[in-house]
Amino acid sequence: MDLKVDRKSPTPLHLQIAHHLRELILKGVIPAGGQLPPTRKFARELGVNRSTVVQAYHKLWSEGLIEGHVGRGTTVRHNPGAEAPVSPLPWEMLLAPQPEAVELEIRELMRLFSREDLISLAAGLPSPDLYPLEEVAEIAGEVLADEGTTLLQRCAVEGYLPLRRLLAERMGLSPRETLILSGSQQGLYLLAQALITPGDFVVVEAPTYLGALQVFRAAGARLIGVPVDEHGMDMTMLENVLARTQPKFIYTLPTFQNPAGITMVTERRQRLLDLAYRYRTPVIEDDPYSLLRYEGEALPPLANLDTHGYVIYLSTFSKILFPGLRIGWLAAPQRVVEHLATLKRMIDLFTNAPAQAVIAEFCRRGLLERHLEGVRDEYRQRRDTMVGALKDHCPKIEFAVPEGGYFIWCRLPRGIAARELLREAFRERVSFLTGELFYPDGRGQEEIRLTFTHQPPATITEGIRRLGQALRRLKRNRVEKAEEALLKPIV
Amino acid sequence: MDLKVDRKSPTPLHLQIAHHLRELILKGVIPAGGQLPPTRKFARELGVNRSTVVQAYHKLWSEGLIEGHVGRGTTVRHNPGAEAPVSPLPWEMLLAPQPEAVELEIRELMRLFSREDLISLAAGLPSPDLYPLEEVAEIAGEVLADEGTTLLQRCAVEGYLPLRRLLAERMGLSPRETLILSGSQQGLYLLAQALITPGDFVVVEAPTYLGALQVFRAAGARLIGVPVDEHGMDMTMLENVLARTQPKFIYTLPTFQNPAGITMVTERRQRLLDLAYRYRTPVIEDDPYSLLRYEGEALPPLANLDTHGYVIYLSTFSKILFPGLRIGWLAAPQRVVEHLATLKRMIDLFTNAPAQAVIAEFCRRGLLERHLEGVRDEYRQRRDTMVGALKDHCPKIEFAVPEGGYFIWCRLPRGIAARELLREAFRERVSFLTGELFYPDGRGQEEIRLTFTHQPPATITEGIRRLGQALRRLKRNRVEKAEEALLKPIV
Repeated sequence: MDLKVDRKSPTPLHLQIAHHLRELILKGVIPAGGQLPPTRKFARELGVNRSTVVQAYHKLWSEGLIEGHVGRGTTVRHNPGAEAPVSPLPWEMLLAPQPEAVELEIRELMRLFSREDLISLAAGLPSPDLYPLEEVAEIAGEVLADEGTTLLQRCAVEGYLPLRRLLAERMGLSPRETLILSGSQQGLYLLAQALITPGDFVVVEAPTYLGALQVFRAAGARLIGVPVDEHGMDMTMLENVLARTQPKFIYTLPTFQNPAGITMVTERRQRLLDLAYRYRTPVIEDDPYSLLRYEGEALPPLANLDTHGYVIYLSTFSKILFPGLRIGWLAAPQRVVEHLATLKRMIDLFTNAPAQAVIAEFCRRGLLERHLEGVRDEYRQRRDTMVGALKDHCPKIEFAVPEGGYFIWCRLPRGIAARELLREAFRERVSFLTGELFYPDGRGQEEIRLTFTHQPPATITEGIRRLGQALRRLKRNRVEKAEEALLKPIV
Repeated sequence: MDLKVDRKSPTPLHLQIAHHLRELILKGVIPAGGQLPPTRKFARELGVNRSTVVQAYHKLWSEGLIEGHVGRGTTVRHNPGAEAPVSPLPWEMLLAPQPEAVELEIRELMRLFSREDLISLAAGLPSPDLYPLEEVAEIAGEVLADEGTTLLQRCAVEGYLPLRRLLAERMGLSPRETLILSGSQQGLYLLAQALITPGDFVVVEAPTYLGALQVFRAAGARLIGVPVDEHGMDMTMLENVLARTQPKFIYTLPTFQNPAGITMVTERRQRLLDLAYRYRTPVIEDDPYSLLRYEGEALPPLANLDTHGYVIYLSTFSKILFPGLRIGWLAAPQRVVEHLATLKRMIDLFTNAPAQAVIAEFCRRGLLERHLEGVRDEYRQRRDTMVGALKDHCPKIEFAVPEGGYFIWCRLPRGIAARELLREAFRERVSFLTGELFYPDGRGQEEIRLTFTHQPPATITEGIRRLGQALRRLKRNRVEKAEEALLKPIV
């Protein structure tokens, strides 16, 4: 066949070949039913890889111009193109590689967890019976009536200015150092996109927030987990890591950490910053829970201790108020805010403006403070209820009592795997999250996270009672199995 | 203490005070153990509120520089943070490469365009005076009162089911083939992330929606622009492109296209699908405007004509209602919806649920239909007003009259560059968008986009009058300059 490829052309070789053949076919030079040369032979003639010819044939086949027959080789179709049956799109090939197994598992778990007959101690949600519905409905009506024309129009990508002002003032910043987010998850996503180049190291606490693990992983980060003890991140380990790798940033939840409930003490906060300065590493401080302190003294956020613009601060109204309006925010050097705003514009142009105005007005009227006083009292009781129930029904589970936040982090009795316990717990109609979801490296298989904020006290007690049942049945089964195994040789 | 505050500075007073004190401490002017003046006295000296000084001291305390003792006042800490000097973070190096010049230019333009004294014919926005504020405020109050507890809780990432059902029903689909978006820009972003591998070809119309160009480019696509004429995309050119490259998808706005106002005729719609099937190429149909038809017969969306699941359909309430609530949606094969939902979960967990419920209820009550009837009448008039004004004030500008949508796309008199005209237009206090923003390749330098929906008729007429002024002055200047140039050698 008289056909030449041009190696200097920007068009890939297989497309050049397909193009030539297509012309020959459509002009009738190779007639319907006519044969194309065998790929191996043709590749030799053209001086290209055989796979290049295969690709070219595949292209023509996908256009309905040719067909392949075992034994008869490749031939030109009768009536090429016109009546070719349409093949379904191979979406699996077209879509970017599938998310990893953990994501799928989480989706599966969420489906299971949404079963109505389950007592969920899994979801990290506030208590819906405490939502200030009347106030929010009233404020929503008012802001729409007063400012609706503006609020339903386009809003600045950086956020609704009165809300930015309010948040900035609270932190002693300029509004230009704040960015309103469509939930703080969006902040994690933006930061991952802005800061992580595939292959970068990122330091996280072990355990840490699983939504952050997913986003950082998806951006191509190599995650290094630094263990936490009851006073926060292990600083010796952190220094080792900083000295050995050059991580893109340190991600920490210093106050009432998700999932471990732990709070980093002041000396470690200062030490963390000193290390960040020494190793010139930015810090992302994720702080959804610090306003939910049930006892003890408030500690300054890292962002306040930071004197050199190293800390990017992230927070949200989802935990202190409710998640449905999707309003989070971040505080960072203005240069960073501008960069993230540009990314955000591509992702969603701007955040729902009436929702921002409702939250701003809710805060302005002092209702947030009032709401916080109420939920703190209630959540303290729920925490104490859960602590009491755990002691009663699950005396072998070890845990520390958190001073605030949402979670009690539990170490199961030795040899009890969290996943096996979860299976039993489903049978008892109670759910929780298993520990290994929160580790970057598969640890945590004998740990579980329990949420004490979402359910009323009586349900918490019942949930923990069921957990105790599940735990006992699991142990019994194991003993029985062990006994069976022992007896087998005898019988 | 020798310290002055500047009341005209945008920096809050307490931060100014903290800043001065910080310098004095770090330089050793106030040594370790040294006392700061009592707040009351210091406030009097400075002529500020005592709370301002307290805030300043609190800031320094939170930075670990000072400490307070009952009875001994406030003193500078020993060892105040300072060992090695800390260098500022090189954010420029840490952040991913800057967005391209076009993005910066758009940001700059948006700043200019937001000037209050300008008549904006630039922004693609609906008319705020037509917003159904009362109905929306009422519905918002009602859905929060009725379903608030659920709506303010977590919502499925795929969207609020009643809204998905409603949209699915309209298109004859299953709700599982729909995905609610935080605005349709999010759909473009998700699709770009899911489908584009850097280096992929993507076919767009030339001109096309600039937000799509940005997102596809940012994902690493090589954009191929297929020209449009008054009947839509050039199909011969499209086939050429499909035969020569293997684009990842074809992106089209077939109805009242942004920016050109053009509608693809039915034969070309069918032809586009045939080509997509032959070359096995997915199609993204972006359809924000089709319900805004002012004359002529409605045409079926590509998604309806498609019999093989090749079309991903994208739309939004931003153009037919208002953009502030950020609700868009897409329809696609379930496999694609699931994939995109997984990505969306990482980006913002889910879309504001009360906003989804408000829109669903607005539609359910038949208010959307009523609203559309009203805006169609009004926008038809505004289009006709703009057409008339263009004929009166800018007789040399060529344009086609669109049957619907938002835009009139204009070809300037030969030799008049859109950017130069924009400069003159700013002096006349009227704005528009220049054509090259909408092309993947820098064409469009003598074209401009005018929006006729956003301003009331009288303002449109005045805006076009100013545009005519700008045009004439530009021509006069050019003639003068040309004459000067001619005269120079003589004088």
